[in-house]
Amino acid sequence: MVQKVTEVVGTSTQGFAAAAKNAVEVAAKTVRNLRWFRVVELEGQIREQKVSEFKATVKIYFDIEEG
Amino acid sequence: MVQKVTEVVGTSTQGFAAAAKNAVEVAAKTVRNLRWFRVVELEGQIREQKVSEFKATVKIYFDIEEG
Amino acid sequence: MVQKVTEVVGTSTQGFAAAAKNAVEVAAKTVRNLRWFRVVELEGQIREQKVSEFKATVKIYFDIEEG
Amino acid sequence: MVQKVTEVVGTSTQGFAAAAKNAVEVAAKTVRNLRWFRVVELEGQIREQKVSEFKATVKIYFDIEEG
Amino acid sequence: MVQKVTEVVGTSTQGFAAAAKNAVEVAAKTVRNLRWFRVVELEGQIREQKVSEFKATVKIYFDIEEG
Amino acid sequence: MVQKVTEVVGTSTQGFAAAAKNAVEVAAKTVRNLRWFRVVELEGQIREQKVSEFKATVKIYFDIEEG
Amino acid sequence: MVQKVTEVVGTSTQGFAAAAKNAVEVAAKTVRNLRWFRVVELEGQIREQKVSEFKATVKIYFDIEEG
Amino acid sequence: MVQKVTEVVGTSTQGFAAAAKNAVEVAAKTVRNLRWFRVVELEGQIREQKVSEFKATVKIYFDIEEG
Amino acid sequence: MVQKVTEVVGTSTQGFAAAAKNAVEVAAKTVRNLRWFRVVELEGQIREQKVSEFKATVKIYFDIEEG
Amino acid sequence: MVQKVTEVVGTSTQGFAAAAKNAVEVAAKTVRNLRWFRVVELEGQIREQKVSEFKATVKIYFDIEEG
Amino acid sequence: MVQKVTEVVGTSTQGFAAAAKNAVEVAAKTVRNLRWFRVVELEGQIREQKVSEFKATVKIYFDIEEG
Amino acid sequence: MVQKVTEVVGTSTQGFAAAAKNAVEVAAKTVRNLRWFRVVELEGQIREQKVSEFKATVKIYFDIEEG
Repeated sequence: MVQKVTEVVGTSTQGFAAAAKNAVEVAAKTVRNLRWFRVVELEGQIREQKVSEFKATVKIYFDIEEG
Repeated sequence: MVQKVTEVVGTSTQGFAAAAKNAVEVAAKTVRNLRWFRVVELEGQIREQKVSEFKATVKIYFDIEEG
Repeated sequence: MVQKVTEVVGTSTQGFAAAAKNAVEVAAKTVRNLRWFRVVELEGQIREQKVSEFKATVKIYFDIEEG
Repeated sequence: MVQKVTEVVGTSTQGFAAAAKNAVEVAAKTVRNLRWFRVVELEGQIREQKVSEFKATVKIYFDIEEG
Repeated sequence: MVQKVTEVVGTSTQGFAAAAKNAVEVAAKTVRNLRWFRVVELEGQIREQKVSEFKATVKIYFDIEEG
Repeated sequence: MVQKVTEVVGTSTQGFAAAAKNAVEVAAKTVRNLRWFRVVELEGQIREQKVSEFKATVKIYFDIEEG
Repeated sequence: MVQKVTEVVGTSTQGFAAAAKNAVEVAAKTVRNLRWFRVVELEGQIREQKVSEFKATVKIYFDIEEG
Repeated sequence: MVQKVTEVVGTSTQGFAAAAKNAVEVAAKTVRNLRWFRVVELEGQIREQKVSEFKATVKIYFDIEEG
Repeated sequence: MVQKVTEVVGTSTQGFAAAAKNAVEVAAKTVRNLRWFRVVELEGQIREQKVSEFKATVKIYFDIEEG
Repeated sequence: MVQKVTEVVGTSTQGFAAAAKNAVEVAAKTVRNLRWFRVVELEGQIREQKVSEFKATVKIYFDIEEG
Repeated sequence: MVQKVTEVVGTSTQGFAAAAKNAVEVAAKTVRNLRWFRVVELEGQIREQKVSEFKATVKIYFDIEEG
Repeated sequence: MVQKVTEVVGTSTQGFAAAAKNAVEVAAKTVRNLRWFRVVELEGQIREQKVSEFKATVKIYFDIEEG
């Protein structure tokens, strides 16, 4: 089974795991057969001296039909 | 004090911190004197287009008796 | 707009996102105009065979006046 | 000449080169003007204590028309 | 706001900044809402013992609508 | 399911894939439930100005019972 | 002679070298005895589908008196 | 000849080489046929504003019998 | 306990450990509560075809009061 | 025994191991006392949508007489 | 076609691209059949608080006759 | 002033700094105008369960005449 990789930056006010979930949710709208993801980078936005948003850049791997 | 290092992949449905905790819990069953861990990789399983499991690969450092 | 970077290690008993938040909170006491952060390393302390503290080393970027 | 990059995971029971070839074959079905590839990661599946499949994650570079 | 990432190799006879600009120009023809880019690799072609072309491989981040 | 990681250097006169296979075969003698491996480094021995042996350093991941 | 390191993000509409220069100019206002810099990251802002600003994150090394 | 790898953190008040030696000495008590080591990280403890201990994290490679 | 990080380049004619010690000594003059350091880079100056000076670039971690 | 390092890119239509062998063969024509090599990068040329050539960039280590 | 690699540090008062060009020009005096280069590091000298020179460390690849 | 880079592996029974010195001494026999070196890797040979030799792989930078 061959896989392709797409890189997505998800965000969340809750934390890094929620940001990764967000990235997968968005990818799921346009790509089928998502299988797993790997975190590439974890970042965050700061507004008024507080963390306003967590960001997770993830590589998402999905199966593609070879037929 | 000399330390050894063991590498473990923990999992959790809750998030990356819980996955790291899981890795430490499992290591604690067979290794004594655990001291600290470092995250090597953060990943996740996707089932039916949703994140089903977070995974944290951690290096766990533990003291060993030199005597 | 030019930015400078400061590196801080935050801690939390809750998780990696809370540890990153802690780092930003501490930086906010002495540095103005914080803009964003990037995670450099995720670690944790282990006491009595359990994770006692999560640690997030983050690079925090802040604006500086050029005038 | 501008190029774009796509990341694909190919597999093979024969070895790493065959896995990379497989990745290129699959990319060739949907992308034209493939030029070269670089290996990003080499892995393998183990079933019943034996290597059952080699995997090569490759970045594939292809020309795009600028016109 | 979620972002996706595309990787493009731009070229220029002028220098690395112009090569990065070229990559962004080409991406702009098919992708909307480009936000920023990061340099992944800087290279160059040599013809008749002189640099004939500068190349910049860049990751380009663009916003996607979640709706 | 929690996994542990062991690092092994396999060798072969045939090539890198055979060297990785060799590493897995040796690990299989003392560790159960091997699942997958990742290549860490590829090297080779040279004797009398020819490659005499290929070496593959691999990280091998195996399941451990949590019970 | 001991040196300290400060990390600064400079910007320019001209290119990466000008962005690095900008970073050094800003550092020069508050730190004496600057000696050299190393590029850590090259990025750029995109506005209306064009590169609007080049960014160079540089580590700047400066001498400190030991006396 | 297949090799396995173990990761050990040695310490010394003398320097990095002595810390690496310490790591090898400790490994030698429980593992046979040690062949070589590679430094993964060099660190140090600071007490009362002075370096109190040098630390060398090393990967130690040892032969294992295949028979 | 939150920590900040400062990066310093120490030098010595004796060796790398002495160069790291030198970096810590200099940092100790202006920063309190130094805790540990990690080596980032080891280099050396060559004069008249001999090593004239060893250099250790280290990240030094120190506690900061949160109160 | 001191060693020097030379970096060579070998090619083959057969696979990565053959490409590494090719690099060593070529180095062997002008350099004596080759001892071992390490793979730095694995790449491949694509012609008419198929892999036409595997490339292995290797660092080759050879002994030099100190006398 | 086999290639060898040489590493050169070029300099320029103009910018990073000119520094890379300088490195290629110098290599061209003693090595034939230069084909391409890759940037390894970008640095700069600072004199009297201004950038006095840009430096580009590049790996230069050249063809060698196998005959 | 343009510089070239040569990579050498020095050895010593004394420590890493002595091994780096050894590498520079050997390079000094055939190359003029050596300026500085950077450590690429630190390793060691183990014989009869003890460290028998320290190894330092260093990149050595030397000036070349452009005239």
